[in-house]
Amino acid sequence: MKQADLDELVPVDLVLERFFRQAKTRAERIGASYLGLWTALESSTRGGKRFRPRLVLAAYAGFGGRDPSAAAHLAAAFELLHTALIVHDDVIDRDFTRRGGPNVSGRYRDDATTAGIPVPTAEHRGMSTAIIAGDLALFHSYRLLDRSGLADDLREALLQILDDALFASAAGELIDVDFSIARDVPSVEDVVEMERLKTAVYTFEAPLQAGAVLAGADAAHLPVLAQFGRRLGIAYQAMDDLLGVFGNEQETGKSTLGDLREGKRTLPIAFAATTDAWPGIAAWIGKPDLTDGEADQVRALLLSCGAEAFTRRLAAEHAAAALRLLDRLPVEVAQELSPFVGPALDRSR
Amino acid sequence: MKQADLDELVPVDLVLERFFRQAKTRAERIGASYLGLWTALESSTRGGKRFRPRLVLAAYAGFGGRDPSAAAHLAAAFELLHTALIVHDDVIDRDFTRRGGPNVSGRYRDDATTAGIPVPTAEHRGMSTAIIAGDLALFHSYRLLDRSGLADDLREALLQILDDALFASAAGELIDVDFSIARDVPSVEDVVEMERLKTAVYTFEAPLQAGAVLAGADAAHLPVLAQFGRRLGIAYQAMDDLLGVFGNEQETGKSTLGDLREGKRTLPIAFAATTDAWPGIAAWIGKPDLTDGEADQVRALLLSCGAEAFTRRLAAEHAAAALRLLDRLPVEVAQELSPFVGPALDRSR
Repeated sequence: MKQADLDELVPVDLVLERFFRQAKTRAERIGASYLGLWTALESSTRGGKRFRPRLVLAAYAGFGGRDPSAAAHLAAAFELLHTALIVHDDVIDRDFTRRGGPNVSGRYRDDATTAGIPVPTAEHRGMSTAIIAGDLALFHSYRLLDRSGLADDLREALLQILDDALFASAAGELIDVDFSIARDVPSVEDVVEMERLKTAVYTFEAPLQAGAVLAGADAAHLPVLAQFGRRLGIAYQAMDDLLGVFGNEQETGKSTLGDLREGKRTLPIAFAATTDAWPGIAAWIGKPDLTDGEADQVRALLLSCGAEAFTRRLAAEHAAAALRLLDRLPVEVAQELSPFVGPALDRSR
Repeated sequence: MKQADLDELVPVDLVLERFFRQAKTRAERIGASYLGLWTALESSTRGGKRFRPRLVLAAYAGFGGRDPSAAAHLAAAFELLHTALIVHDDVIDRDFTRRGGPNVSGRYRDDATTAGIPVPTAEHRGMSTAIIAGDLALFHSYRLLDRSGLADDLREALLQILDDALFASAAGELIDVDFSIARDVPSVEDVVEMERLKTAVYTFEAPLQAGAVLAGADAAHLPVLAQFGRRLGIAYQAMDDLLGVFGNEQETGKSTLGDLREGKRTLPIAFAATTDAWPGIAAWIGKPDLTDGEADQVRALLLSCGAEAFTRRLAAEHAAAALRLLDRLPVEVAQELSPFVGPALDRSR
């Protein structure tokens, strides 16, 4: 990231810090345990890549926006929406860690087991607490934008973008839940659509559109921007799916066994299911105690059947399409957004 | 309920119906399964007592409000907040039924078991889906109020009341989760405070205050109204706790074994824990397979140790205090609100 980008991030962090400071003061009046929950929630907003804020600010700058405070509030609202969605997604996936450390569920589970509570009860306590924490983050993502002091029509347009983003993400999460219990492996197209709804709309399309709308961009640019976000989102997601199986755990902070053990319906898996290699792969996918050695065999098969190459090529094609779309946007916008395309293909985390 | 009250409910139901019709149209564009989720969510807003809307409308009418449409939107926002909170509360309590039928988790669990999915997976699918549904209801409770077309300062005041209500409810839910895993039984005072935060603030205090604010009530009345709501909330909650153990299942639509099996920290239990009868009661509380015969023994002990009488008296005292507070409010307000006090003591469901 360039220094200029880093400088842009500061206001977002300040907005979040101020928001959490106020919330913690309110929570402390109710009690120490509630203060603890808000502190855990704040921690779970830290350590991320601030990807959504960066896209909001890039689109905003590209379209000539000049109010850093308004942009920072909008960017912070997207970061808080992201926090809400990952906290609840972790409950749905029964994950107790994120970015190499315990997440909200994990902290509350670990506190309980330390106090001698049996593991199943402690896990349920962790998940229950994370449901509550996610609700607070979700509600306040909206509230943060609502209180940004914007004029009525602009505020409503931005809230509608946030609304559309949550609407899509909930649909994608629902489809993902159903994929996880279905016997059949979904098609590549269905996985692309699920991942777009669940993650890419709120991560790429919505932040870009929101930044542009806040900057007063000509409405004619918005569909192109949405297409750019869509293409970029598919590229990132395809690479994410690869990193989840072939990544370097030290760099991603994420086990490369998790997706395989969980039987997650990713792009390489959906592709592999269409090949002759599938009968040899299927038995390992979703095996909860898959060993490192077994995972290595699965990886070898995913490479030899072409699933790895297919997914990498899919990412490259969508990234290339994203770059071409930038030619249809003002040059200042293209300059701001092009730095996001390369990393979609050359990522280690 | 009087006919006049029933007539008042119509606009709230119309607002909710219109909201769900629009949401379902949007959802259908994404797919049939998403339409199904919205349909399940809509169903879970039906069959309730519309308690929060009725309080909003009573306070609004008492303070001379004259805009039925604005009041109906505000009332509907509280009903949707209630839906969100009970849908997530059911996940936390691992309940799959409500009001005698399957709730959101229950429907999605049952569909999965019917399709041959093993029960634990089906249950997790039900709970995951309910997390998603609750998120949508929560976000849109806010959105419904936000789009009500009110002037800026009024909208902000009402959103702040909704914000305070969720803030309190999350705190109460957190305390309740911790009560459920703690070995010691909390004090009566701690149970009263937990129940107030978790349920009474968003059910009584906030709807009354919001109705009054929307009607343009003199700010001097608001603290008295809050006190009234607080007292009334404790009275209802105490009676709820009694109905959960001593109620008529046909009338409440709720098993009288559930709270005992779950080991729920209710007012009669908190009182009983301070008496000599507790060692004889404690062993049954939280026994997951408690039989009808064992429950009868527990009931007899709760009666003989005075826990039933204590809880009933607590309800009566708070209801009486609520009535006295009405003398400090305008007579039109007292006329609207007094009908809510009697039922706190004479309830069958």
